[in-house]
Amino acid sequence: MDRCRSRLQGQLNSVYPASGSLPANLLAALEYALNNSGKQVRPILYFAAGRAISEAEQASIKAALALELIHTYSLIHDDLPAMDDDELRRGKPTLHKAFDDATAILVGDGLQARAFEIIADAPELSAEQKVKMIKVLAEASGFAGMVGGQYVDIQSTGKDLSLAALRAMHAMKTGALIRASVALGGIAAGASEAQLVALDTYAEHIGLAFQVVDDILDVESDTQTLGKTQGKDEQENKATYVKLMGLEGAKSEAQRLLEKALAALNDFGESAEMLRELGRYIVDRKH
Amino acid sequence: MDRCRSRLQGQLNSVYPASGSLPANLLAALEYALNNSGKQVRPILYFAAGRAISEAEQASIKAALALELIHTYSLIHDDLPAMDDDELRRGKPTLHKAFDDATAILVGDGLQARAFEIIADAPELSAEQKVKMIKVLAEASGFAGMVGGQYVDIQSTGKDLSLAALRAMHAMKTGALIRASVALGGIAAGASEAQLVALDTYAEHIGLAFQVVDDILDVESDTQTLGKTQGKDEQENKATYVKLMGLEGAKSEAQRLLEKALAALNDFGESAEMLRELGRYIVDRKH
Repeated sequence: MDRCRSRLQGQLNSVYPASGSLPANLLAALEYALNNSGKQVRPILYFAAGRAISEAEQASIKAALALELIHTYSLIHDDLPAMDDDELRRGKPTLHKAFDDATAILVGDGLQARAFEIIADAPELSAEQKVKMIKVLAEASGFAGMVGGQYVDIQSTGKDLSLAALRAMHAMKTGALIRASVALGGIAAGASEAQLVALDTYAEHIGLAFQVVDDILDVESDTQTLGKTQGKDEQENKATYVKLMGLEGAKSEAQRLLEKALAALNDFGESAEMLRELGRYIVDRKH
Repeated sequence: MDRCRSRLQGQLNSVYPASGSLPANLLAALEYALNNSGKQVRPILYFAAGRAISEAEQASIKAALALELIHTYSLIHDDLPAMDDDELRRGKPTLHKAFDDATAILVGDGLQARAFEIIADAPELSAEQKVKMIKVLAEASGFAGMVGGQYVDIQSTGKDLSLAALRAMHAMKTGALIRASVALGGIAAGASEAQLVALDTYAEHIGLAFQVVDDILDVESDTQTLGKTQGKDEQENKATYVKLMGLEGAKSEAQRLLEKALAALNDFGESAEMLRELGRYIVDRKH
């Protein structure tokens, strides 16, 4: 995981546009956004999925970068006052706090465009792989995925959600991009359709587990460890797994989802060990 | 031009995501955004550029749709209170006025993703064409293009800009997407590199002329004809071509740019007539 992160870190300079010069403040805001990296779960899932299919680890760092850029843009927009109105992200002031709302909207917009550009421009992928990746990533990022899920989340704040509705919301809001991360890793490594289906079943359950654990941490952790304001869900009366299932119920749910995810990898051998390890990390993490 | 518009209109239903069901309000906002169509200059430029290269007009409606979606998303975000704070767009309340800021941010974000997805999914284009188009469109939409230009525009409001700085800002803010529209049309029609260069010279000058005329109309037209608030540039003390060159100076500048654009098409015959006509339309339009 550390090696994945350091490979990704080495790629950050390629995010700045090659042509033209950016206004100094926009460049500063972009640097601020890129240098506040988190757990990088999505790029790591991407590498791990690729590893499960083939040893060719060096094949496709650009797609990993694109996944992280889409995730970064979504956090920047979600934090805006018009959306979740968050002041803290990964232990630092959110982008619109450090700069302003207009800059945050534009940095998010630019990062989304850059993500697709970076895949289209990746030297080590075939045109067919790029098109498939862009299709998967765009669908996961858009109305039927991340954007739609964020919309439902905002509309649901303060309302009672059923467990089914909560699952459906998270499947869109965070699940879709996690599934896309694993799918892109498979595509980069030349996975068969059957392998992609198995990887997707793994990713679907890991994605749900990720959110269950997020809800648990919002109750059990503290602001400093989390890098974002602790207790915000309860304060805003948000529907969470903890609220609907209780703390212990949510913890067994996370374990149940992890087991389902691991079962989907049964036909993979040693090569899927990194995916398995990541599943356990996602469920056992402390922030 | 009417035929282009009606072909595009017939494609709007394909913008809604095929999988999953959108929340009713998000769907309503998306419909509101899509049904408030403007002059559709970008798709028409795309078709006209394709026509200049080849007769195969039916080849590639999807890329035209993608261009219009990127343009639509940019208007929605630019109109936000944190940006230009506009209440009127194409004669109707702006999206954030009719709905709210969060919805407007998310509809814009979703439209951007959908634009790239639609190109990646276009049945009539080769993988190589799609990748080339996505690269050109993403670059034009991003930091080195539209997003960067909008940033400079916001930062410049109320400041004195030189003519060179004003041109550089518009080349990014609106020029880049206009050039991309023409480039995509060329790519769809299989243009040679030399043909793409000639088309780009045309597009560069048409793009600049487009903005000069916008500035003239902001002074000479009225709110009803424009469909947006007239006189806003002067009211906000914005740098414009009219302010820097005078009304007559701006009018000769528009003519000079049109002539340069037309000269770039000298090696094309009859097939480029639609491009020429569009150039004249852009300079002579009343709104």
